[in-house]
Amino acid sequence: MYIQEIEVEGHLIDSMILTTIFDIVMDQRGDFEVLEFRIGKRKTDYSYAKLLSKGKSRRHLNSMLRELFRAGAVTPTNVEAKLAPAPRDMVLPDDFYSTTNHPTSVFIQGKWIDVQGLMMDKQIVVEPDKLHAQCKPIRLVKKGDLVVVGVMGIRIKPPERPREGVGIFEFMTSRVSSEKPSATIVKRVAEDLYYAKRDGKRIVVVAGPAIIHTGASHSLAKMIDLGYVDALLSGNALAVHDVEYTLFGTSLGMNLETGFLTKGNRNHIAAINEVLKAGSLKTLVENGVLKKGIFYQCIVNEVPFALAGSIRDDGPIPDVITDSVEAQKEYMRLIQDADFVIMLATMLHSIAVGNMLPSSLKVVCVDINLAVVTKLSDRGTAQAVGIVSDVGTFLPLLVEELRRLESTANK
Amino acid sequence: MYIQEIEVEGHLIDSMILTTIFDIVMDQRGDFEVLEFRIGKRKTDYSYAKLLSKGKSRRHLNSMLRELFRAGAVTPTNVEAKLAPAPRDMVLPDDFYSTTNHPTSVFIQGKWIDVQGLMMDKQIVVEPDKLHAQCKPIRLVKKGDLVVVGVMGIRIKPPERPREGVGIFEFMTSRVSSEKPSATIVKRVAEDLYYAKRDGKRIVVVAGPAIIHTGASHSLAKMIDLGYVDALLSGNALAVHDVEYTLFGTSLGMNLETGFLTKGNRNHIAAINEVLKAGSLKTLVENGVLKKGIFYQCIVNEVPFALAGSIRDDGPIPDVITDSVEAQKEYMRLIQDADFVIMLATMLHSIAVGNMLPSSLKVVCVDINLAVVTKLSDRGTAQAVGIVSDVGTFLPLLVEELRRLESTANK
Amino acid sequence: MYIQEIEVEGHLIDSMILTTIFDIVMDQRGDFEVLEFRIGKRKTDYSYAKLLSKGKSRRHLNSMLRELFRAGAVTPTNVEAKLAPAPRDMVLPDDFYSTTNHPTSVFIQGKWIDVQGLMMDKQIVVEPDKLHAQCKPIRLVKKGDLVVVGVMGIRIKPPERPREGVGIFEFMTSRVSSEKPSATIVKRVAEDLYYAKRDGKRIVVVAGPAIIHTGASHSLAKMIDLGYVDALLSGNALAVHDVEYTLFGTSLGMNLETGFLTKGNRNHIAAINEVLKAGSLKTLVENGVLKKGIFYQCIVNEVPFALAGSIRDDGPIPDVITDSVEAQKEYMRLIQDADFVIMLATMLHSIAVGNMLPSSLKVVCVDINLAVVTKLSDRGTAQAVGIVSDVGTFLPLLVEELRRLESTANK
Amino acid sequence: MYIQEIEVEGHLIDSMILTTIFDIVMDQRGDFEVLEFRIGKRKTDYSYAKLLSKGKSRRHLNSMLRELFRAGAVTPTNVEAKLAPAPRDMVLPDDFYSTTNHPTSVFIQGKWIDVQGLMMDKQIVVEPDKLHAQCKPIRLVKKGDLVVVGVMGIRIKPPERPREGVGIFEFMTSRVSSEKPSATIVKRVAEDLYYAKRDGKRIVVVAGPAIIHTGASHSLAKMIDLGYVDALLSGNALAVHDVEYTLFGTSLGMNLETGFLTKGNRNHIAAINEVLKAGSLKTLVENGVLKKGIFYQCIVNEVPFALAGSIRDDGPIPDVITDSVEAQKEYMRLIQDADFVIMLATMLHSIAVGNMLPSSLKVVCVDINLAVVTKLSDRGTAQAVGIVSDVGTFLPLLVEELRRLESTANK
Repeated sequence: MYIQEIEVEGHLIDSMILTTIFDIVMDQRGDFEVLEFRIGKRKTDYSYAKLLSKGKSRRHLNSMLRELFRAGAVTPTNVEAKLAPAPRDMVLPDDFYSTTNHPTSVFIQGKWIDVQGLMMDKQIVVEPDKLHAQCKPIRLVKKGDLVVVGVMGIRIKPPERPREGVGIFEFMTSRVSSEKPSATIVKRVAEDLYYAKRDGKRIVVVAGPAIIHTGASHSLAKMIDLGYVDALLSGNALAVHDVEYTLFGTSLGMNLETGFLTKGNRNHIAAINEVLKAGSLKTLVENGVLKKGIFYQCIVNEVPFALAGSIRDDGPIPDVITDSVEAQKEYMRLIQDADFVIMLATMLHSIAVGNMLPSSLKVVCVDINLAVVTKLSDRGTAQAVGIVSDVGTFLPLLVEELRRLESTANK
Repeated sequence: MYIQEIEVEGHLIDSMILTTIFDIVMDQRGDFEVLEFRIGKRKTDYSYAKLLSKGKSRRHLNSMLRELFRAGAVTPTNVEAKLAPAPRDMVLPDDFYSTTNHPTSVFIQGKWIDVQGLMMDKQIVVEPDKLHAQCKPIRLVKKGDLVVVGVMGIRIKPPERPREGVGIFEFMTSRVSSEKPSATIVKRVAEDLYYAKRDGKRIVVVAGPAIIHTGASHSLAKMIDLGYVDALLSGNALAVHDVEYTLFGTSLGMNLETGFLTKGNRNHIAAINEVLKAGSLKTLVENGVLKKGIFYQCIVNEVPFALAGSIRDDGPIPDVITDSVEAQKEYMRLIQDADFVIMLATMLHSIAVGNMLPSSLKVVCVDINLAVVTKLSDRGTAQAVGIVSDVGTFLPLLVEELRRLESTANK
Repeated sequence: MYIQEIEVEGHLIDSMILTTIFDIVMDQRGDFEVLEFRIGKRKTDYSYAKLLSKGKSRRHLNSMLRELFRAGAVTPTNVEAKLAPAPRDMVLPDDFYSTTNHPTSVFIQGKWIDVQGLMMDKQIVVEPDKLHAQCKPIRLVKKGDLVVVGVMGIRIKPPERPREGVGIFEFMTSRVSSEKPSATIVKRVAEDLYYAKRDGKRIVVVAGPAIIHTGASHSLAKMIDLGYVDALLSGNALAVHDVEYTLFGTSLGMNLETGFLTKGNRNHIAAINEVLKAGSLKTLVENGVLKKGIFYQCIVNEVPFALAGSIRDDGPIPDVITDSVEAQKEYMRLIQDADFVIMLATMLHSIAVGNMLPSSLKVVCVDINLAVVTKLSDRGTAQAVGIVSDVGTFLPLLVEELRRLESTANK
Repeated sequence: MYIQEIEVEGHLIDSMILTTIFDIVMDQRGDFEVLEFRIGKRKTDYSYAKLLSKGKSRRHLNSMLRELFRAGAVTPTNVEAKLAPAPRDMVLPDDFYSTTNHPTSVFIQGKWIDVQGLMMDKQIVVEPDKLHAQCKPIRLVKKGDLVVVGVMGIRIKPPERPREGVGIFEFMTSRVSSEKPSATIVKRVAEDLYYAKRDGKRIVVVAGPAIIHTGASHSLAKMIDLGYVDALLSGNALAVHDVEYTLFGTSLGMNLETGFLTKGNRNHIAAINEVLKAGSLKTLVENGVLKKGIFYQCIVNEVPFALAGSIRDDGPIPDVITDSVEAQKEYMRLIQDADFVIMLATMLHSIAVGNMLPSSLKVVCVDINLAVVTKLSDRGTAQAVGIVSDVGTFLPLLVEELRRLESTANK
């Protein structure tokens, strides 16, 4: 028998940390013995557990430990994290550590150092002399960077169940379903946004082109105008459809007022041509051509946006960052310090952004397709609250509610 | 070669009647020759075609003719429809004719008689002396009823493309998609409902329990109160959830304001118990226990409703017609003379009602699940306009729009 | 402060029983103190907890206790369950107890009595002198029946995480998703079925008409023939489509080999007519008309089936139980003593059957629509393993695998 | 009244060309008169129509004509197409013509010239002296390129209904639905592929990562090995998952045989690291590290592939073309001269490829999500046959059928 003592502290029971730990041992056909257990006497008290984990081989034990540490366990005595230099640019040492999206510290030179810029499935690069640890995607790892390897000397703080509260995150504790009271949900999201803005929190919106097709662009433009959007992440299609709708009243050629298709998709290309002619969305606004809409509001309100290129793009317009690695960098820059992320009707960008977020960040995802919401969660963004609804009717009601809250507050 | 002359008249081109006729011949590997063709010179003119259809055998020709007649073709000279008596109750003569849902006439005693109460996949029972033809489901056919058999002497009027217009049916000419402008759709449906009510048309609502879960019951109750519902078709669940929500504020135990689950589904059974105790929903209203909600509004506004039993029911409450054959009869009675049917978030009842409707009746179907809308159409209710949206946000916006139209009209 | 001591024993951590208990208190804004806690030292050991639950009022405390007892907690000293007579047929005493679907006992005359025929959201009727407790739906409660009321003297055994294993239930521990390896799933389901049959377990199949449309009827027929189906639950449509396909090669008029629509839905009605003529499916087999297919196999292999009527039915055929209350009784009879339930492509019947099952019963649900699988779970059948796949390709692979297992065993 | 004579020839009725023409006039509230009409007497004969289209203004007439020409109409006398130089790189003359995806010719110097490399929503660049016309996306238009403008001198050939046949395209004439016989569909697709390969046709596969998750990678690898794939279009994820599965037996950390999650997503990053270390997938094969799987088969069989970068990518691996404009060029190069495109479980790449295809190319799209299939069609790839199924069960059955066809042929 190969054994290792581990310990864990926190809201072990209601945040399911201990459940996860027991699950890991059973999934891997290992064994354990509880050496010590102190349960939090009151609901605000922490619990503590010390366990002996047992494997059939060194390899088996290590495989369990790797998972146990990811679940929040630590060794009773602190061990220095092991570091190894990257052999080349964009190449990792073989035994590299791969991050979770939960708050993480590494034990370096006798101190626990918090990892900065945390994202899931990335690596940790340490500058020991500066006591600095940074989360980095493999693409940005440089030759000689000191990368955390192995599984020791790393401490994870798994997410805790919110103790009590009234926001959308407390409301939606149960699973995703289309059978939730939409009107109540709209109210809760509006309240959360209202208080976030009032408290100077940073709100980032990730948006897909269905916002235009479903006729909700007025609502998103209004949200920007009211100050509820601090950055907008999207792709070429949202911008092109926004310009097409503003200039010609159509979206992919469909007149949104009459429903008739006009001139096929010609207006779509004409919108692209206008932006290419002007050189950028900003110039199009400055030239007085683009006078309203989502991107008009972004530009006059100085809300930054990032448009990522995709294989599906027509054009694309010059504002689009066509290189996906560069686009990721810009997305990451705009998400930094975000407090609240709202994802609207886009699977591609939602999952991309989900990959860049620590689990502590609040995420709301609205989509008519249950599969999008499920997939976001399956891919690791488990904290996301999924709302299965129609953005075309959801956003107008949300804006109505935001205005009501603002006017009530102003009285 | 076995041949038969057929002819067809109408808006053959834009209503795709001639396309369908050519398709049938090609699908069945038959052949045809156009003997005569007069195209409508202007868009309001009818076209006329006479064709020679050719089969490889008598059986092959008949198989094609069966389909061609269903598509609107007739023989140049009128032939008496053949009738045969039903050998027993609920048993048809072997060569029975099975209906489409398009307006149908039978040639009896030298006259074209319109078939009454038309539904798809049913039979035609004729009383020759009364010159009366009735559409009947097999269950209601009695021994000795004269049933139309074979394919001759029957004339179908396939649906025509609306010439021009501005309602929801003209708006949604293209295929079902979730990418339609929801706000515009809400407006169009509201206008259609508003004018239907103003013109004394009969509006029937088919509704599923998701209306309660998604928090839209206030909206449907308001629609009833405003006079936009002339009959309500549903099942046990809608009524039980409506009572549960009105009495306890929960739906299947979930508090719709706070989102917390309370007392499991106990309230659900308690609601059923209250109705069983009172004896009926009506008595519950009369006793002063049920004071608002969908069924309260039905009862005080004398809007008839039919609740069909299903294998899934808890209870059920005494208002439910547990026998499916009896429930179908009551549904059929309430749908009779309907002008407009709105289906809200229920696959089971929507498809059931779809089977009972002539194709000339206007049908709108709102569901968050694209598959429901597609299935309704696949099952033959091809005239249904499908709206992929969230009833929880769609209905509140619809009621807002109806009120706006009413208040504008009252100025 | 209103207080009550409770205790709970079992695999409290990994089966999340203690998590649920803490959740309840926090959801209801109550408070608790842990008085005693013994954790299972090894993975097969039980844990034990004694807690003091605290409410702001008697009502508040009771509301918490109701939920806590449902989660598996009991009072440290046994209290007799309270009984009250039903005031009338189909009417419950106001404070009736509503069941979970977990194994339940009631404390009667100083003894813990197991409740028989357990289903969720039903009532418990006790015969104290016989020491017998039966789960009953409200419809079957008779005047004078002694119904369990209040929350005391009831003990629930929540489901435990499977300790270890290799079947489909261990495989699918994570959430429903369409992104699971289908080939592996097919193998696991086949193995579970194979061993279930070998060990004389009772397998019940719940099936929808999509089985016929997707061309999988041969596969289901083969499963019956091989002895993998001990009862079949469905509705009118499955039987009618099966007869239509067997007699005419079409399903709702579509030729399943060529894909062409023939004679609209006439064959559908003709199939119904054949059964009505014969009087029953059994007679149709005995007459030599029905010579293969799903129901042919049921009849020759003496596998009982129940067909529940629905508002959507054409016909229906005489084998259908048109009264929903009677159909439920027959479904319940056939499910009794089932060990394994497989639900195939039917939302209506799956949820109906889910309502009738104790949580200890193994359930597999295959549907192409993610929403069906999610809904089943939302409605309380949380133990169901959901497989998002196409029955048209899933069943042929499953039968292939079953045959492989049988032939390997026979070597 | 503003008028213009137009004429049109072809299978006007069954291919719905005339229906479309009448629809356009009615949608736009214009008017028409039929001047001449000759209907094809037999099913192989062409029909011919000459119409007078009438608008309320020059602008109204032009707007109608633009659509009528797109639907296949031409002016009775040939008019030279108008050309205008692009004012700058990537900027079009204002009145540019936007393409359909149907075969298109332009009338240049008195000759009808076929447009090469046709795609929808692109432009036509003409070299008059070479009598050459090329379809180009706006990004590739250079300053001075002669771009077709206006609506005259352009002739479209709308798709015709297949006259008769037995392949998957004839089978699936009706709308997308999950209720089609999957086994028959598998057979038809297999036959079409078998004959396509036999006849030296070029088959291109567009594939998403769900192929790996659902356990179908063996099947796709086998299809490549058997010679059924002439080019593979995908993104980073398919390649990374393929390497991860081949090297570690997991997909995003899930062991596809046991279903257990191992090491989170670490294996995913480890797979990327291996490719980055080697420098490319090809080197990984040459080094003997990658010994089976989809990309192994591509490399040893010299099947070209293109991997397009996306904002969602981890890594990405060096084989990925991170610039979306460059990736589109490579996709277009590989699609050139394709005869058959199969899209498997990927919305992003399917719609991207759909945009690059002429409507004459055969497209099959398999996805478990009905919405993907619907969207592809909504976006203009109307010729795509949509199959709602599970690739995890569909592909193994397809490969089984392909092998059966091959072994039968070899006898």
